[in-house]
Amino acid sequence: MAKIVECIPNYSEGKDLAKIERIVAPYKNNPKIKLLSVEPDANYNRTVVTVLGDPEEVKKAVIESIGIATKEIDMNVHKGEHKRMGATDVVPFLPIQEMTTEECNEISREVGKAVWEKFKLPVFLYESTATAPNRVSLPDIRKGEYEGMAEKLKQPEWAPDFGERAPHPTAGVTAVGCRMPLIAFNINLATTDMSIPKEIAKDIRFSSGGFRFIQAGPAEILDKGFVQVTMNIKDYTKNPIYRIMETVKMEAKRWGVKVTGCEIIGATPFAALTDSLKYYLACDGIKDDVDAMSMEKVVELMVKYLGLTDFDVKKVLEANI
Amino acid sequence: MAKIVECIPNYSEGKDLAKIERIVAPYKNNPKIKLLSVEPDANYNRTVVTVLGDPEEVKKAVIESIGIATKEIDMNVHKGEHKRMGATDVVPFLPIQEMTTEECNEISREVGKAVWEKFKLPVFLYESTATAPNRVSLPDIRKGEYEGMAEKLKQPEWAPDFGERAPHPTAGVTAVGCRMPLIAFNINLATTDMSIPKEIAKDIRFSSGGFRFIQAGPAEILDKGFVQVTMNIKDYTKNPIYRIMETVKMEAKRWGVKVTGCEIIGATPFAALTDSLKYYLACDGIKDDVDAMSMEKVVELMVKYLGLTDFDVKKVLEANI
Repeated sequence: MAKIVECIPNYSEGKDLAKIERIVAPYKNNPKIKLLSVEPDANYNRTVVTVLGDPEEVKKAVIESIGIATKEIDMNVHKGEHKRMGATDVVPFLPIQEMTTEECNEISREVGKAVWEKFKLPVFLYESTATAPNRVSLPDIRKGEYEGMAEKLKQPEWAPDFGERAPHPTAGVTAVGCRMPLIAFNINLATTDMSIPKEIAKDIRFSSGGFRFIQAGPAEILDKGFVQVTMNIKDYTKNPIYRIMETVKMEAKRWGVKVTGCEIIGATPFAALTDSLKYYLACDGIKDDVDAMSMEKVVELMVKYLGLTDFDVKKVLEANI
Repeated sequence: MAKIVECIPNYSEGKDLAKIERIVAPYKNNPKIKLLSVEPDANYNRTVVTVLGDPEEVKKAVIESIGIATKEIDMNVHKGEHKRMGATDVVPFLPIQEMTTEECNEISREVGKAVWEKFKLPVFLYESTATAPNRVSLPDIRKGEYEGMAEKLKQPEWAPDFGERAPHPTAGVTAVGCRMPLIAFNINLATTDMSIPKEIAKDIRFSSGGFRFIQAGPAEILDKGFVQVTMNIKDYTKNPIYRIMETVKMEAKRWGVKVTGCEIIGATPFAALTDSLKYYLACDGIKDDVDAMSMEKVVELMVKYLGLTDFDVKKVLEANI
């Protein structure tokens, strides 16, 4: 299998579609890159772009696109509801297939170095690629926003990883780094009592003592008459889908409430499905080789085991390449 | 119910039993205090003492005992296999009954202030009572040990919470703070394959992405022909016994291995049992009021639900008062 990286750059322009078109141009007409989505948000005045493909090609296109955004976007006149510190605000690289975290760290460092040298854009490395504990989390780095960056970069602990201690005069500062793909996972409970998903979310989420890579809360699905535990799985290799599903079932039992199904919002890496399928097959004493199965078969079995709704092969990240 | 605090001071003397006797004297002959154990270890050259009782009385006795240890123990000639930084090395206060963490924090601060004023012993507040993230963990505070403390206390980030920037000339430095009672919990697996408890320990422990308050590893019980997942539950209010037990069962299922029982080493707070019993009764649809049950009844039911071995009322912390 080929190496595949995903990149989800966020640009601080959500209204001027012609400008956005110019910024994403490097992601088009390259057979080794797939531009999965371009999502401008006018209120945020921000566009989230998702690209997948060959690591070297994605890297080159990202550098080129950052260069265009640096020229096109003037942060001195930028207004929007989303917090931001730069024209290209944040550039996460995600290992998808045959890639290690360390390889994504290396790409992040290469991009950081290149955009400083080419465009004089200072860069903080964040998440897995961070060089100090206080710069792991994006909100910590971005605190103060564009307007506060000139002052912030002079503080002893806020020297950029690449570049000088002053933001770019119109493009500010950019964060680049490796993170794991998030899985947005919702589990349906056959009740309308919101106190139950609230309790269960507390049981499983890290902030109240639960699993290290789970963020969770309750959600009311008003029109359908049930509730959900809604969550982000921040690292499915450490907190696999099956373990979260089975823990939620175990907790729901004390409330006498049935888990009736679940959904994955957005795309999921194929490995997140195969890892969990291996658990369920082993529990059933089935010795089939999951790694040799087709994507269709894995999806079919996971739909059955988890009770996944609205799910098909198109929701597998790798099916979009 | 009366307020009860537990204190487990560690003194850097494990050989001279007459000296130890003088150090623990303040814990004796007080009807409001129960001296649960005095455990000297000659190799460690260290004694672990466990006392339970009325918070105000325990506090007074601890201050008096620290005063005696300060006079009796000369750290300049102390040798032992356990890391240490002071004559009274560490003084944890644990909320047991009708006590909040904040009340234990307050006792810790009072003890810290008193031993500095009375004995000129510098104090770091640690765990829940810590005043900065780098002084939460005892190993971080103790790094450098007795011999390195004079240098360490001069560093900008290592000013003691009470006292001046120099260790006591013979008694060093002491850490005082509130922590939750640890539960040492072992789950038996009907196999001799050590790779299975190793995998399951990884699934549940914090350091590899699991529950926030679980430390876990595999253990081989050679003479009995089975293996264990052995663990510390560092906060049973956030990671209750039942949740850990049921998660281990869920993981064991994929290996086709049965959970055959479990054991709690040392004493357990009664609330750790009642909390988990409520889960199991709710799952069985039994509406009995656990809070109204006798200690004997709670123990009997938990032995049944968990398959606890070698467990009776005497293992409940509060039964020893």
